[in-house]
Amino acid sequence: MGPMTTPGIDDVRLAAVRIAPFVHRTPVMTSASLDALVGAPVRFKCEHLQRAGAFKYRGATNAVQALDAATAARGVAAHSSGNHAAALALAAATRGIPCHVVMPADAPEAKQAAARAYGATVVLCEPTLAARAETLAEVVARTGAVEIHPYDHPDVIAGQGTATLELLEQAPAVRTVVAPVSGGGLLSGTAIAAHGTDPSISVIGAEPANVDDAHRSLAAGRLVTDRNTTSIADALLAVLSERTLSILSAHQVEVVTVTEDEIVDAMALVFERLKQVVEPSAAVALAGVAALVRTGAPPPGEVGVILSGGNVDLAALPFDRRVTGTSAPAGRGKR
Amino acid sequence: MGPMTTPGIDDVRLAAVRIAPFVHRTPVMTSASLDALVGAPVRFKCEHLQRAGAFKYRGATNAVQALDAATAARGVAAHSSGNHAAALALAAATRGIPCHVVMPADAPEAKQAAARAYGATVVLCEPTLAARAETLAEVVARTGAVEIHPYDHPDVIAGQGTATLELLEQAPAVRTVVAPVSGGGLLSGTAIAAHGTDPSISVIGAEPANVDDAHRSLAAGRLVTDRNTTSIADALLAVLSERTLSILSAHQVEVVTVTEDEIVDAMALVFERLKQVVEPSAAVALAGVAALVRTGAPPPGEVGVILSGGNVDLAALPFDRRVTGTSAPAGRGKR
Repeated sequence: MGPMTTPGIDDVRLAAVRIAPFVHRTPVMTSASLDALVGAPVRFKCEHLQRAGAFKYRGATNAVQALDAATAARGVAAHSSGNHAAALALAAATRGIPCHVVMPADAPEAKQAAARAYGATVVLCEPTLAARAETLAEVVARTGAVEIHPYDHPDVIAGQGTATLELLEQAPAVRTVVAPVSGGGLLSGTAIAAHGTDPSISVIGAEPANVDDAHRSLAAGRLVTDRNTTSIADALLAVLSERTLSILSAHQVEVVTVTEDEIVDAMALVFERLKQVVEPSAAVALAGVAALVRTGAPPPGEVGVILSGGNVDLAALPFDRRVTGTSAPAGRGKR
Repeated sequence: MGPMTTPGIDDVRLAAVRIAPFVHRTPVMTSASLDALVGAPVRFKCEHLQRAGAFKYRGATNAVQALDAATAARGVAAHSSGNHAAALALAAATRGIPCHVVMPADAPEAKQAAARAYGATVVLCEPTLAARAETLAEVVARTGAVEIHPYDHPDVIAGQGTATLELLEQAPAVRTVVAPVSGGGLLSGTAIAAHGTDPSISVIGAEPANVDDAHRSLAAGRLVTDRNTTSIADALLAVLSERTLSILSAHQVEVVTVTEDEIVDAMALVFERLKQVVEPSAAVALAGVAALVRTGAPPPGEVGVILSGGNVDLAALPFDRRVTGTSAPAGRGKR
């Protein structure tokens, strides 16, 4: 596939078959009190219960399993500071091939340890994008490994779409699917899977206002990646690629932005009402739904929300910094 | 039923039928990394996903639904500082009858608010057991409401046993069931349900070493309630009654004690490996299993663990006080 190959619904369906022996079919959860808050039934797709703790394992597994035997034998490689590293490491280990992960030297020790625990060779580099790209190029040149990009890769995008394919099987009345957006791999796969199932389903991305390049790029019709700062949603710091921008544009995906406080409040709702441990980035989609409801533009019909990952540092949970307190104790535990 | 009526397996089976329209059939979860830690498959019964956030709703619902119409119309009452208050309030609201809950004035605001949100009349009193009993007697005398004791009540015990009845249907290979013990309602119901299903199943209670009256009472063959202090497992501060002691003795239930650090470590394992939000008291059973494994006396065969509740104050999570750190990041998210 060429550099601008974009997958279609058939690729997502093929991915679903290809990865079925390796991935969890994650459950869908609900909460009566969250339904009341949103004013519509909300179906949470629990990808924080996926292997390696995030949806990333779907895309990584699809890309690794799609390789021909000779290519696969040379191994795979990526640079990542987050969930893609662990996901690719586990996907490679499952196929029994080498995996090289380039990580910035300041990546959390736990993330480095997770990649190593799954058998990857971790190569540390300076914490700049330039150093990461350069080090990865060196690793690829030295080992012959094939790069598996965390989102700018058609097999990865198709793999991520399988979460929505499952969600729409498990909750067929869903009329809107909401997913977080970072580089756009998950959101692109979500749009392809949703519209391939039913073109009338609304697809909405949710993004930290601090890192709103997807929102601005879709508005401008071209990549706009300046002005990004940082966010507690530390898995959402990447920027769209030409490929993911073109997919999201073609599917007329809307992107809603949320504040840091809204992310923490949504995360508290997931902990208190669903009793599920998710990372801040995984709460961004619910924060987006809440923002739409608050501004009088609720998403149409039954809502599917992708809970994208659960790899959170328990020693750094953000609940001491809650300010707005949307999460009243009254409904705690109501389901 | 008289003061020392003890329920049997038929009462648990009747309770299961009676409460089925009202309770969640909670899921059973697993984790490959926790299986490896324990050295046997572990099946977690997710009562933190029960309505009102704890198994308590089973017993409260069974007791409330078992009342004849005339008695029920007078309402129900209890004193409680914890999950029984919310559970009884919701059970009464579901039947459309009044509920009066006596709570110590220092009970967490969230617990008071939860009981009120479910429609209960909350009566505050001095934070002593004597004041609680006296205030409850006044409420009962004034309103004609019938007291539903949180554990020293045969219908409550039978209701709590339905969690294990379900667990053994969902995971029929389980050979040992482990539950936390406080006043002994859950553990008594667990023993009756397990042995009524298969007398060869081992039943183990787990208890904070700081509040080890069940362990000492079973050893002494009589109630021994001195020397209890307090515990982070704040739902486990009650003491056995003559009724629950006699049931646990008859079923030869073993009780293992765990330290405060072991409780926090087990709670971290549930958060990190299962990605589930539980309260400290709910982690005590897994802490007990870990303690048995560590001392070279692992529970026999496949293990069922009751995750009893999820009503935890997010602002007071204890992960900054972890000391022993059994919870390495390596296996995070492995399932």
